Amino acid sequence: MTETTLETITALAKRRGFVYPTSEIYGGLASSYDYGPLGTELLRNIRNLWWREMLHKRPDMVGLDSQILLHPETWVASGHVASFTDPLVEDKETHKRYRADHLIEQWLAANPGKDDVAVEELTLAEMGEFIERNKVLSPEGNEISKPKAFNILFESAIGAVEGEKSKVYLRGETAQGIFSNFRQIVDSSRVRLPFGVGQIGKSFRNEITTGQFVFRTLEFEQAEIEYFFDPESTEWEPVFKEWQDAMWKFITETLGINEENLRWRRHSDKERSFYSKETYDLDYQFPFGFQELWGIAYRTDYDMQAHLKHSGRKLEYIDSQQGGKRIVPHVIEPALGINRVFLMLLCDAYWEDEENQRTVLRFKPSLAPYKVAVFPLLKNKPELVEKARGIFNNLLDHMTVTWDDRGNIGKRYYYQDEIGTPFCVTVDFDSLEDDAVTVRERDSATQERVKVSDLLAYLQERI
Amino acid sequence: MTETTLETITALAKRRGFVYPTSEIYGGLASSYDYGPLGTELLRNIRNLWWREMLHKRPDMVGLDSQILLHPETWVASGHVASFTDPLVEDKETHKRYRADHLIEQWLAANPGKDDVAVEELTLAEMGEFIERNKVLSPEGNEISKPKAFNILFESAIGAVEGEKSKVYLRGETAQGIFSNFRQIVDSSRVRLPFGVGQIGKSFRNEITTGQFVFRTLEFEQAEIEYFFDPESTEWEPVFKEWQDAMWKFITETLGINEENLRWRRHSDKERSFYSKETYDLDYQFPFGFQELWGIAYRTDYDMQAHLKHSGRKLEYIDSQQGGKRIVPHVIEPALGINRVFLMLLCDAYWEDEENQRTVLRFKPSLAPYKVAVFPLLKNKPELVEKARGIFNNLLDHMTVTWDDRGNIGKRYYYQDEIGTPFCVTVDFDSLEDDAVTVRERDSATQERVKVSDLLAYLQERI
Repeated sequence: MTETTLETITALAKRRGFVYPTSEIYGGLASSYDYGPLGTELLRNIRNLWWREMLHKRPDMVGLDSQILLHPETWVASGHVASFTDPLVEDKETHKRYRADHLIEQWLAANPGKDDVAVEELTLAEMGEFIERNKVLSPEGNEISKPKAFNILFESAIGAVEGEKSKVYLRGETAQGIFSNFRQIVDSSRVRLPFGVGQIGKSFRNEITTGQFVFRTLEFEQAEIEYFFDPESTEWEPVFKEWQDAMWKFITETLGINEENLRWRRHSDKERSFYSKETYDLDYQFPFGFQELWGIAYRTDYDMQAHLKHSGRKLEYIDSQQGGKRIVPHVIEPALGINRVFLMLLCDAYWEDEENQRTVLRFKPSLAPYKVAVFPLLKNKPELVEKARGIFNNLLDHMTVTWDDRGNIGKRYYYQDEIGTPFCVTVDFDSLEDDAVTVRERDSATQERVKVSDLLAYLQERI
Repeated sequence: MTETTLETITALAKRRGFVYPTSEIYGGLASSYDYGPLGTELLRNIRNLWWREMLHKRPDMVGLDSQILLHPETWVASGHVASFTDPLVEDKETHKRYRADHLIEQWLAANPGKDDVAVEELTLAEMGEFIERNKVLSPEGNEISKPKAFNILFESAIGAVEGEKSKVYLRGETAQGIFSNFRQIVDSSRVRLPFGVGQIGKSFRNEITTGQFVFRTLEFEQAEIEYFFDPESTEWEPVFKEWQDAMWKFITETLGINEENLRWRRHSDKERSFYSKETYDLDYQFPFGFQELWGIAYRTDYDMQAHLKHSGRKLEYIDSQQGGKRIVPHVIEPALGINRVFLMLLCDAYWEDEENQRTVLRFKPSLAPYKVAVFPLLKNKPELVEKARGIFNNLLDHMTVTWDDRGNIGKRYYYQDEIGTPFCVTVDFDSLEDDAVTVRERDSATQERVKVSDLLAYLQERI
């Protein structure tokens, strides 16, 4: 099997309508992507499966949908205004900016054995020393400046009068919407510790990125959970382990990803945030190497205490079962990037079937944008078209279906394979006699004759 | 039946976890709301039903998920930078800003018969004349300035270096993402004219609003469709009518809204945008009067021509079935506000049942946040709790379920009625003998005994 490159995936994604560069007609926008018809369906499937497995199937979870625009004090309290920064260097000739840590990583990859550091643990000053020590240059081959910290929150302003507008930030993570609504959730619903709050939504980071397609973009989609518990009555280790297991199960069973391409990476003491007692990344092996897909951190009560102090509000849980005990809960946070799952699914599904000379996206049927394609054998035979239309319309109520009457059957199979449609249904002249159709399965490329009256049940069983 | 006020709905929504003021712990953010556990589920149901009815069930529709941040030229081309404005006046004493058109509407309501204008048709100058003629004052009773036009696009900036950041706008509508991706959609998918593109997403307008809860907020969610067709081979009137019918059917049948609270309002020639040949609003009777829920406009090829000219790209459709004819398609745009649907559903479902002294949200079961609540009769009887847990866990795989073991059964019914749960299932001592449960229906408050083995089918049939 040939190695799948990011270029191959990017080209397929664009050609077949999974992903487009944003504002392409105006020359594009840096590190920004729109999702086309197929990509939009794949995203919807990812979100719905996550919501079902992580929220609906768990009695201890509820959902939230908080705003992108939050009060700016939220980000002062959380520490983002002071320290949500990237270490940037400047090319002294071209004045272009680069991520210092990325240049160091690239230097290490190009110069194996010549220096030895854990890049994610370096301070700004240590990065500067490394750059000086090894004479790291910009991608253009020029000298670079010392690294500086740049805040990556996007700013905007609310209000109708120029001089009197108030600054707001686009959220840099969805999590702060959960913390700041904690009291309202407890007061208005029947949740009891331990419980979790999940939400899916867009976040924004003004980052400099380096061509990893939808892996890292300025605007991106998160699925974050804050799981709240009383550290005096619940031990954190088993809860942490339980969430790790749930994450692993979601990726391997629900999404069907091969375990060989996954790994847990524990953050070292130095890398971990000062308030975190334990952090793991669940990494996937992308074409550009193992990278974080889903992080999980035990954040103690750092966030709740920060908002409690900053707002002056009692962000406590009053436990009636413990005699009215006041608890500032601790949290465990599993934080997933939806767009990274999307990219992982494309990479994992991609298969060049050399025997049959075709490209296939081997999505699990539950993830495929279209579950079935319906073809009339010939488009200029009204009796075939009519029968196929009837089948098509009948399936539409139950699953996503696409219609295709272009070219010959072989070309249609080729196209449906490339967009990952698990089943193709062909109405031919025999169908008019025996009221049956040919159902062709994507991965095996085998065909089976199925009665029209059994078709829906046949497909539903396999999806 | 008592009149439902917006205050009643707002209070219930906050008390039961449908809607919270954003950043409440920091004093809130103007015209901003977060959606709590129940509101989030209701929003999901609205989105999923719209997507299913408007996209999945139609063979001529595809989806899109474009960014909130678009290239700024998009908004120059669309005319938003020049003219996406609100007419504002300033209180000469307090210097607070108000919408001129809203003050005129309020004056007209308070002074029936004293003047006669169609507010939505007034130009800035005409509003100024009206204000002078009638001595319209601010809500504080002070004189107000002449109306001025204020642009309501939110601005932000991309890039890591302060002086070199480039201006971007948060989208003021999702539609422009569809127009600017038109060529990419046509090139990468098998769509053929006529076809439509639908998308759901957040938009942002820096508006001054006047206490209509989630009806008008700075950040809001749209569900927009652009339906493209060749005006030389497709007449617009039947397409327009077909979409009007689809909109009406969605609101009355899919969402189950009473027709008495709906009306079509045709825009007058003066009110309509200059490029639109026909515009209708589908209005719902909110507690504050009939207001737009869903607009539909025949926008001709205005948007496509604007982007074509501005980008210099050929935004055409090449019709191979018409000998390679080059078509700049015309569009019909049905544009829905998801948050307005949300508010409509709360208002429409609200029922004070005086006979049974209870408040009920009579959602259609398909819309209800939880489909069923499961209760053990007593929470301190392990055999009841265990049996109820088994039923609860079994239902979890198939629908949204909530657990309640607080207080007595009457109080639990009261609570579930208020959040709109259609069915309550109680496990009592008889259940241990006869393996059956009591199922209580929300609106009729009637009870039925159902075998546990039949329960799932019983509920699924009624949801």
